[in-house]
Order: sequence, then structure tokens, then C-alpha cells
Amino acid sequence: MKPLFLGFGNAANVILKELEGYIQDFYYFDEKNVTSSKGKKLEKFFIPDDCSFVVECASVEAVKEYYRDIIISNKDFYILSTGAFADENFRNDFFRFIENSTSKIYIPSGAIGGIDVINAIKKYIEKVVLRTRKPPKAFSRDDKEKMLIFSGDSIEAIKRFPKNTNVSVTLALSVGDFRKVHVEIYSDPKVEKNIHEVEVVSSVGNYKFIFSNNPSNNPKTSLLAPLSLAALIKKNFENVKIGG
Amino acid sequence: MKPLFLGFGNAANVILKELEGYIQDFYYFDEKNVTSSKGKKLEKFFIPDDCSFVVECASVEAVKEYYRDIIISNKDFYILSTGAFADENFRNDFFRFIENSTSKIYIPSGAIGGIDVINAIKKYIEKVVLRTRKPPKAFSRDDKEKMLIFSGDSIEAIKRFPKNTNVSVTLALSVGDFRKVHVEIYSDPKVEKNIHEVEVVSSVGNYKFIFSNNPSNNPKTSLLAPLSLAALIKKNFENVKIGG
Repeated sequence: MKPLFLGFGNAANVILKELEGYIQDFYYFDEKNVTSSKGKKLEKFFIPDDCSFVVECASVEAVKEYYRDIIISNKDFYILSTGAFADENFRNDFFRFIENSTSKIYIPSGAIGGIDVINAIKKYIEKVVLRTRKPPKAFSRDDKEKMLIFSGDSIEAIKRFPKNTNVSVTLALSVGDFRKVHVEIYSDPKVEKNIHEVEVVSSVGNYKFIFSNNPSNNPKTSLLAPLSLAALIKKNFENVKIGG
Repeated sequence: MKPLFLGFGNAANVILKELEGYIQDFYYFDEKNVTSSKGKKLEKFFIPDDCSFVVECASVEAVKEYYRDIIISNKDFYILSTGAFADENFRNDFFRFIENSTSKIYIPSGAIGGIDVINAIKKYIEKVVLRTRKPPKAFSRDDKEKMLIFSGDSIEAIKRFPKNTNVSVTLALSVGDFRKVHVEIYSDPKVEKNIHEVEVVSSVGNYKFIFSNNPSNNPKTSLLAPLSLAALIKKNFENVKIGG
């Protein structure tokens, strides 16, 4: 396989390393003019005919700028910056645009998981609560006790806490309704890492998932997110697919 | 799409209902000689040329009896009775056999989830613990307090508690190592439903998933398992695939 990486920073390199043995060659494009000793650099963004699929690990803006080119090319498209879908207009445009393409769009579970359960029980969900706890310094605060600093639906949470956007959006997309996802954000001096807790109440059963992620080399993102995208690519090339 | 159901009991009917609007017609084969007013009944098991894929929701024995026919037909194969893979000889035969086929094998997350996370961090996992709590009567016991009645690896757990097999096997397959999955089984008078808890310790982060499933019409299985298989089929027919 010969992917095209849209964005070639830390996440792309994590994915590349995970796909060792799978990838023969690759293209990359990065607006920051990054240069790598491996792969073929694109000076301007375009989709080479012989690229196998496109992997976005750049930014919300890059998804919005290039999605039409990618979808028109009928190449499969893996998206890390799922936060792009927080924008309702973009979301509607995107879902309309994809209808006339044979591209498949892959949105990984990212920095959380349990999306397999949510996909399975989507119709039966009463409520999903995302509780995020971060150390006070993440909010430039100095709370001595755990403080609830936000409580509202995912649409409001995305507006007020854009750093949390990818997780809220992935959850809301899987639930299929941004209003059904309630978000609580806590400043908590007892935690050292960001902790996401997802609670799902449904007529099929009740579920609780707790994610305590270590940061990646880029302290703003967890390592789990690019690993999740890499695992999705691998799965698509395997005969036996476990989970989902 | 026109699936072939191998086994046409409660699970098949849950899946069929979930796939309303996706399925045009279907075949079914059931050794118990079930008859349905819809679909085409097969009196003997074979793979009709025009069937789109095969869905097993019969038994471990049916997987073992028919997998060669299905894989030779190059049809995709969805497996609910993942417990079949508890048998190491079968597992090795199966994985060898699939190499010469274009069939894709789908093993759903089943009665648990979070397999998306495990797939992503597989290489980095130190330990996975499955803790299952059931009411004492499930073990024909009358404990007044929570009792640890088994602690050991998934291979031993499968031998001693065959009713728990599907969940242990799905976990072990996703981890890629049956010995890395430690199982604890509790008889707990405080619980009314079966509760599975999965704890994952890894260098990427630590994760905990708690599943409190409601039973399906068949009290021995949870509704989540067939819903999970149905969601996997739907996902394969969608342009935008969320999670994994």
C-alpha cells in the first residue's frame, strides 16, 4: 500500500511506524513544509493516481480544505481531526458530498473507545455522558478540590472547550445525535493525566468506560488516537477482523 | 443483500430485524428444522451462489462443521459463536485455511466492547483482566457475600466455565495471546445481572470497561451480542464508518 499523509507531524510518524511491513512507499503533504528522508513529498496538495488512500493527521482546517478533492478522487479517507464534524454546515456538506463517491470514510475511535458498543446499541441509547477530568493547570486554574467547570450538551461543550472537541465529536457521531451526548468537565487536583469517562444508559444494558491515556510526544494529544487510526488501516488489510 | 443464516433462532431474528431495509431476501439453515414465513429454507447446508455472505448464529459445533465450506465459497463469514476459537487445534486450522481464500472473517465484539481500544494498543498491552460477576444462582450456589470462585488465565477459565467462553475468547483473540488474559469469576449476591469488567494495563494508558447487559429473549445470551454482529454488517455497507 502507498498512502498519502495529509499532515506529516508526530501523529503521521506514529502511524507510519505502526504500519511498518504494510506500507511499501508513501506520499506526504504538510503545509508547514516538513521534509522527511523517506516517502515522496508533495509541494502542492493533490491526489496522485497511484496512492492507495489518504490519511489526514493535520488539522480540522485541512479536513475542510481538502475533503472535496479526496472524495472526488474516490480514494478512501481516514480522518484523525474528527473535530471538523463539530461544524454542522461542514458536516451536512460532507455527508451530502460523499453520496456520489465510492470513497469510504474512516473515523477512528481516537482517544477513546467503546465505540463498538455504541454502534451496536445506537437505536436503544437513552443517554450518553462524557465526563472529562483534567488537572487544574490544564484550565489555568488552581483548584484545591474537584470542581465541575462545565455541564451541558456536546454542542455547547465544543464551543466552550475546543481542546476536547475530537472526543465529543467522535462520541456524538457514533450516537448519531449531538444533543444526546451530555458533557461534564472537571478540574481535578487529584488527577495527573486527562481522564475521560463515558457512561451509556440504554435499554440493552448500561456501560461505563474509563480512559486514562498517556500523552504522546505531542503533549496535546494522546498516543491512543493515532494508534487507533493505524489499527483501522491494518484491519482493512486483514482477512480476519476482530471487534467492531 | 441476501445473507445466509447458519442457525435461525433468537439471535438470527434479532439480526434480521436490525437489518430491515438492508436485506432484500435471505437463506436460512437450522439443524433444529425451524421454519420461517420469510426467507428461503435450506434443507441441507450449502452455500447458494447468489448469497452475499454467511452469518453464523447457531453454535460452536456449527462453526467447526461448516467453516471449510464457507471459506471455500469465498463468501464473507460473520461469526457469533466465537467460543469455537477456544479450541487451539481448530483455531490453527481455521487461520491456515483462510489464507487461501478471499473470504473476510468478521468476529464482532459480542457481549462486550472496547475491542477498538485493544486492537489499537495490542502491542503495548501488559495485562488484561476480565472480571465477571454473576448472581450466586448462576453457579448453583447460595453465597451471602461476594466470593471469588475462579482466578486463572483465559485457557483455564474456558475449560472450567464454558458458559463464559465467547467473551473470554473474543478478548483473547483481540489481545492476540490467550495467556495474557487473566480471568476472575465472582459469585455475587449483590448483582442481578451478569456484569463483565475488563481492565487493560498498557504503556499507552490504562482502561476499564464495565458491561452490565440485559438478557435477550434467550436468557443465556445478552442482546448486545447479536446487535453487535448486526452493526458490523451495517458498517460494511455504509460509506462513513465510525469507530474501530
